[in-house]
Amino acid sequence: MLLVMRLDASRDEIERVKAKVRSLGYLPHEIPGVQRVAIGITGNPREVDPENFLNLAGVVEAIPVSKPYKLVSRDVKPENTVVRIADGTRTPVEIGGKELAIVAGPCSVESRAQILELAQMLKEQGVKLLRGGAFKPRTSPYAFQGLKAEGLEYLREAANRYGLFVVTEAKDTETLPIVAEHADILQVGARNMHNFSLLERIGDHKKPVLLKRGFAATVEELLMAAEYIVSKGNYDVILCERGIRTFETSTRNTLDLNAIPVIKKLSHLPILVDPSHGTGAWELVTPMSLAAIMAGADGLMIEVHQNPELALSDGFQSLKPETFSSLIKRIREVAKLVQRSF
Amino acid sequence: MLLVMRLDASRDEIERVKAKVRSLGYLPHEIPGVQRVAIGITGNPREVDPENFLNLAGVVEAIPVSKPYKLVSRDVKPENTVVRIADGTRTPVEIGGKELAIVAGPCSVESRAQILELAQMLKEQGVKLLRGGAFKPRTSPYAFQGLKAEGLEYLREAANRYGLFVVTEAKDTETLPIVAEHADILQVGARNMHNFSLLERIGDHKKPVLLKRGFAATVEELLMAAEYIVSKGNYDVILCERGIRTFETSTRNTLDLNAIPVIKKLSHLPILVDPSHGTGAWELVTPMSLAAIMAGADGLMIEVHQNPELALSDGFQSLKPETFSSLIKRIREVAKLVQRSF
Amino acid sequence: MLLVMRLDASRDEIERVKAKVRSLGYLPHEIPGVQRVAIGITGNPREVDPENFLNLAGVVEAIPVSKPYKLVSRDVKPENTVVRIADGTRTPVEIGGKELAIVAGPCSVESRAQILELAQMLKEQGVKLLRGGAFKPRTSPYAFQGLKAEGLEYLREAANRYGLFVVTEAKDTETLPIVAEHADILQVGARNMHNFSLLERIGDHKKPVLLKRGFAATVEELLMAAEYIVSKGNYDVILCERGIRTFETSTRNTLDLNAIPVIKKLSHLPILVDPSHGTGAWELVTPMSLAAIMAGADGLMIEVHQNPELALSDGFQSLKPETFSSLIKRIREVAKLVQRSF
Amino acid sequence: MLLVMRLDASRDEIERVKAKVRSLGYLPHEIPGVQRVAIGITGNPREVDPENFLNLAGVVEAIPVSKPYKLVSRDVKPENTVVRIADGTRTPVEIGGKELAIVAGPCSVESRAQILELAQMLKEQGVKLLRGGAFKPRTSPYAFQGLKAEGLEYLREAANRYGLFVVTEAKDTETLPIVAEHADILQVGARNMHNFSLLERIGDHKKPVLLKRGFAATVEELLMAAEYIVSKGNYDVILCERGIRTFETSTRNTLDLNAIPVIKKLSHLPILVDPSHGTGAWELVTPMSLAAIMAGADGLMIEVHQNPELALSDGFQSLKPETFSSLIKRIREVAKLVQRSF
Repeated sequence: MLLVMRLDASRDEIERVKAKVRSLGYLPHEIPGVQRVAIGITGNPREVDPENFLNLAGVVEAIPVSKPYKLVSRDVKPENTVVRIADGTRTPVEIGGKELAIVAGPCSVESRAQILELAQMLKEQGVKLLRGGAFKPRTSPYAFQGLKAEGLEYLREAANRYGLFVVTEAKDTETLPIVAEHADILQVGARNMHNFSLLERIGDHKKPVLLKRGFAATVEELLMAAEYIVSKGNYDVILCERGIRTFETSTRNTLDLNAIPVIKKLSHLPILVDPSHGTGAWELVTPMSLAAIMAGADGLMIEVHQNPELALSDGFQSLKPETFSSLIKRIREVAKLVQRSF
Repeated sequence: MLLVMRLDASRDEIERVKAKVRSLGYLPHEIPGVQRVAIGITGNPREVDPENFLNLAGVVEAIPVSKPYKLVSRDVKPENTVVRIADGTRTPVEIGGKELAIVAGPCSVESRAQILELAQMLKEQGVKLLRGGAFKPRTSPYAFQGLKAEGLEYLREAANRYGLFVVTEAKDTETLPIVAEHADILQVGARNMHNFSLLERIGDHKKPVLLKRGFAATVEELLMAAEYIVSKGNYDVILCERGIRTFETSTRNTLDLNAIPVIKKLSHLPILVDPSHGTGAWELVTPMSLAAIMAGADGLMIEVHQNPELALSDGFQSLKPETFSSLIKRIREVAKLVQRSF
Repeated sequence: MLLVMRLDASRDEIERVKAKVRSLGYLPHEIPGVQRVAIGITGNPREVDPENFLNLAGVVEAIPVSKPYKLVSRDVKPENTVVRIADGTRTPVEIGGKELAIVAGPCSVESRAQILELAQMLKEQGVKLLRGGAFKPRTSPYAFQGLKAEGLEYLREAANRYGLFVVTEAKDTETLPIVAEHADILQVGARNMHNFSLLERIGDHKKPVLLKRGFAATVEELLMAAEYIVSKGNYDVILCERGIRTFETSTRNTLDLNAIPVIKKLSHLPILVDPSHGTGAWELVTPMSLAAIMAGADGLMIEVHQNPELALSDGFQSLKPETFSSLIKRIREVAKLVQRSF
Repeated sequence: MLLVMRLDASRDEIERVKAKVRSLGYLPHEIPGVQRVAIGITGNPREVDPENFLNLAGVVEAIPVSKPYKLVSRDVKPENTVVRIADGTRTPVEIGGKELAIVAGPCSVESRAQILELAQMLKEQGVKLLRGGAFKPRTSPYAFQGLKAEGLEYLREAANRYGLFVVTEAKDTETLPIVAEHADILQVGARNMHNFSLLERIGDHKKPVLLKRGFAATVEELLMAAEYIVSKGNYDVILCERGIRTFETSTRNTLDLNAIPVIKKLSHLPILVDPSHGTGAWELVTPMSLAAIMAGADGLMIEVHQNPELALSDGFQSLKPETFSSLIKRIREVAKLVQRSF
C-alpha cells in the first residue's frame, strides 16, 4: 500500500499518518519526491484497508501495489534515486546522477604496494571509487581467500592517500562490522544476493550498498533483494548487473545489458554494470563497458591490475592500466551522447 | 594430493605422515577405507612435492588430484560414505546404506498442534526423519519467516515424542547455534549453497549436514560446497538435488535426476532428492520420487501437510497424508528393485 | 473450440456438424472417445461463436479451449492415445498401451553387416522397433552425414529379416518420400522440432511419427509442434524427451524426466524417453532408463552399438550389446511396478 | 587445413594447388586477402597430410585448423568480410564496411498499402534495406502464416518504387526458389539455424544470406551453421544475434550483446543485431540498438509498423515510425564514436 500525500501536506499531517500506520502494526516509509511526499506501508501480511487512511488529513490517494517489491518500485517513487557518498573530507560522489560512477581496482588486494600504486594510477584517470577484495568468497576452500583485515587496511590507506572512496565486499555478517568500518560502500556479492540475513544486517547499517545480481537471479529477484535492504531503512542501494548463467560457453557469464532498461523502468534505484565478471575476458570489457553506458547504466565496475597475468585471482578478466586509460577516454566521449559526464 | 598408505601401515606410521603434512603447513585428512587408509592433503595453494612423502614409512603412492575437490571425491575414497544419525536414545538411522532415507514434514512448522499431529502420522508410515522449517529464508521480506525459536521447540518436542530425528535449516551463522541445539541434521538451503562462511561454520560442527544444491549450481560446484564442509573436519555430508533453473516454465524448477548417477560416479557422499521443491507441484512428487530411487538416490525429502491449501508456505507442492501414505507403499516396492529397503 | 456430442449421437448427426464447421470456413477434427465423440475445430483465427453449433442435433456442449494447442490436449481427448504400428505381415506393436515400447539400434547405419548383426541381437532381446540413422543432420558440414539411401535399404533389409519395424529420421522434405518408403515410424529430430514445413508435410503422411523435443523447447512448444502434425490429419504422434540445454556441463544435455508426468497431464499422446542423447554418456543410460519408466514413460529409445569406441557417431553414449541385455532384464522387472510389460 | 600462398603467388600456381586438392578428393576454397591468397581445404573426414602441398610452388605454409569451423574463421581470413548488395540499378549497399546497415520494416507484410507506405517512410529515414515477412514460420499452426507469394510481390514492388533492397525469410526449401526470386538478401530464421538441408540449398545460391542465431545456439554453433553455407561456395553470409533463451522472464529473450565482440574475434563475417526479437519489447529497442552499435555491431534489424497495436504479429515489439525516426537520429551520433556512419 502506498499513501500519496497532498502537495502542500504539512510535516504534522505526515507524522500523524505515519503514527496511524504504526498503530495498526505496520511500518511507514516516508518517500520524499520532487513535488510531494508518499508513504509506503510494509509489514502487511494481509491486505490493509485503504479506508484506514483516506479520511486522514493530507492523504490524497491510497494505492495498492501489486508487484512483490514496493519501496524500490518506480510506481512508489517516480524520480531516480541518487546515492550520495560523502564523508565530510573528500569531494562527495553521486551515483545515479549526471556523472557516471566508475568503480575500479584489483579483484583482490594483494599487497600494500600493489594497491597504493594502483590507487594513484586510478586517481590520475579521474576515478573516485576504489574497489578491491579483502575478504574473498571463493568456490574452492583451497583458493586464496584474500588478505582479510590486512587487506582492508591497505585499501583504506590507499583510498585516503589519494582521496578515493572504498568499495569492498561484506561477505558475511561476522566480518560486516570490520568491513563497514573501512568501506564507504558495502558490496554484496552475487553469491550473497540471496543471503537474506546478510541483507537484513546491511539494511540496519547506514552505509550505501552495492548489490550485485545473483548469477541465476531474475531482475525481479534482484529487486526483492534490494527491497530487503530498503525495508530495513537503508535507502542507499546501488544495483549491479554482473552476468547471468546460460548455456553459452564462449563467455564466462552472459552479461545481460537488457537488465539496464528493464530495471530503469521498474525501479528508481541506480544500476552499475560489471563487465569484468560479466564476461570473464578482458578483451570484452571495453566494448561491453561502452555498450552498457549507451544502454543507460549509471556507471561501471571494472577490474584493473598492474600485471593481470600474475594476479592471484581473475587475472584473465582484468585490464592493464594502459587499456583502462584508453577505456576512460572512450567513456568520456560516450557519456556525452547520453547526457552524462565523467 | 592424496597419499595412499600400505595395506598394513601401522597407526604410528600414519601419525608420522600426518605430522609431516602439518609440518609443511598443510592439513592432513585421514580417510579410512575398507582395505587401506589414505591421507588427503588440503590447504596447498601451490603444488606439493610428492618427494616430501614418498620416502616416509608406510606410504605407497602420492597421487596428485586433478579435480578441484578432493576429500569428497570417489578417487580419494572409493567406498560409499554412510552417514549415521544417532543420539544414544532412539534407533540410529543410516543415510547412504541399504535402507532408503525418507525425510518428511511440512515446509514450515506452523503450530505445536500441527507438527505433533504430522509427526505421529509420519511415524506410523515408518518415517524416521522429521523435517520442518523454523527459520525460513524467503525471497520477500514481507513473507512469513517461520516461527523461529518457537518452531524449533515444537519440532524437537514432536520428534522426541515419536522417536524421530529432526532435520531443519540453519539459515545463517547467527541462528546456527540454536538450530544445532535442536536439530539432528543441519540443513543448508539451496540459496546458501554458496554461503561459504556458513559452510565453514557448519564444518566446525560435528552434526551431520544435508547440503542442498543451489538452483543454478553445477554438480561440480555442489561438490566444492561439500568440500568446504568436509575440509573443516565434518565428514558427515548428505547431498540433496532439488531442481535447477532452466528456461522451462511448466515446472517451478527442473528436477535434475541425471545428477544422481553423475554424483555417484564422482563422489562417495550419499545423495537425497527433494521432488517437492524440485518440481513445485504435488502431482509430480510421486512419479519423480519413484524415478529418483530408480536412478540410485539414497532417499527422498518430501513436504507433507495436513491441509496443503491452508499451508503458510509452499502448499501447492505438499502431499496430503493419504497421498504420502500411498507413495510410501510404492517406495517399498521400488526399493526392492534397487536392493534397498524402507 | 471443441464440440462434445451426445452419447448416442448418430453418424448422420456427426456428419452434419462437420459439414456446418466446414461451411463456416473451419476444419472439423473428429476425435473418437471411449464413450462419446468430440469434434475439434481448427483454423479459426478469430473466435468462433458457439451459437453456430449448439442448436444442431447431437451437440451437447461447445467448449472454448484456452490452451494454444487443442487436438493434442487431454481436455479434448481424456483417453490415452495408443499408436498402432502394423503392416499386415509382422505382429503389430502398440505405443502408449500396456506394453513398453523399446526402440533400439545404432546412431548411424554404418554397413549392411553391422545393422544385420545388431538387428538379430536386438530381436533376441525382444526388441520390435529398430532405429538407425541413414540421413544424419550434423552440426558440422564436414562430419559423416550417414549412408543415406543405401543406409535406408540396409535398415529395411535388417528389419524385414528379423520381423522388426523401422524407426528412422526424416531430416528434410526432400528426402521425406524415400524415408517414408522405408520407415514404419518417421522420426523428427530435435533440431527439426521447429521446422514447421517438415511438420506439415509429415502431417500429410499417414505414417506414425516420433517427434523429438527440441533441446531448448518448452513442453508447450513440443505440444504445439505435435499440433502442427495432428492438425493436418495425422493423429499418430509419439512424443520423445531427449534432454534440454542448461548451464550444467557434467552431462551433454539435462534429461528432463519431469516432462513425462507434465505431458501425461496435458496431453493424451504417448511419450518415449531417449536417455542416450539425453545424457550423452553410456554410464547414465541404465539408471535414467529405469527412472524414466518409473516416472511414467511409455518406452525408451536407446543407442546400441557392437563397438561403441569405433562408432562413426555418438559412440560414447551407445550401449554395448551385453549392457543392453542387462538393461532389458531390469526393464522387465521395473515394468511390473508400473503395470506395464515388455 | 589452410594453405597460405606466397605474397606473389601467380594465378597459375594458385590453380595448380586447387587442382591438387581436388585430385585428393577434397574441396579447395580460395580465400582472397588484402595481401595474399589462402586456400581452405574442406571435405576431409580424416586428417590431410601437409606434405601433399608444401612442395607445390607458391605454397608458404599448411596450417591445421583446430576449430570445428574453418572458412568462417578469422584464423583463415584475418580481414573483415564486407558483403556487397548490388543489382546494377540502385546504389549498392555494403554490410560489414564503414557504413552501418539498418534493415527495417514490418514483422509481416500485411497489405500492399501498408508496405508501400512504410517503404516510403523508411526511405526518407535513409534506410536502404527493407525487411518484411511473407512466408512466416509460426509456433502455432493456427496463427497467421503470412501473405506468402502475394506478400513477396508487394515487398518487391515497394522496394523497387523506393530504391530499396529486400530482406525476407526463406522458411523452407520448397519456397526458397520464389523467395530467392524476390529477395536481395535471403534470411534464415532462428528456428532454421539448425535446418542443415536449408543451409546447404542456400549455400548453392549466390544471394547474400542473413543468418539468425538460434535461440539456444552457442556462438560456435552459429559459426558452424555459417560454415555450412560458406562450404557450399556462398561466401556472402551476414550473421545476426537475436536473443537467447535463459531463465530470465522480464524480457522475451536475453539479447546477447557479448556475442558481438566474441564473433568479431573468432570470425571475419559481419554481424547485425535484432533488438526487436531479442528483447520482445519496443521500449527496449532504442537502448539496446545503441548499445549494440557501441559493442561493435555492423548494423541493426528493426521492426517498424504504422500501428503496432493493430499488427498481425509481434506488434508489442515494433517501433512506431516517429520512434524509429528518433532512433535513427541517435544512431547517426553513436556511429561516429565507433568510426562508422549512417
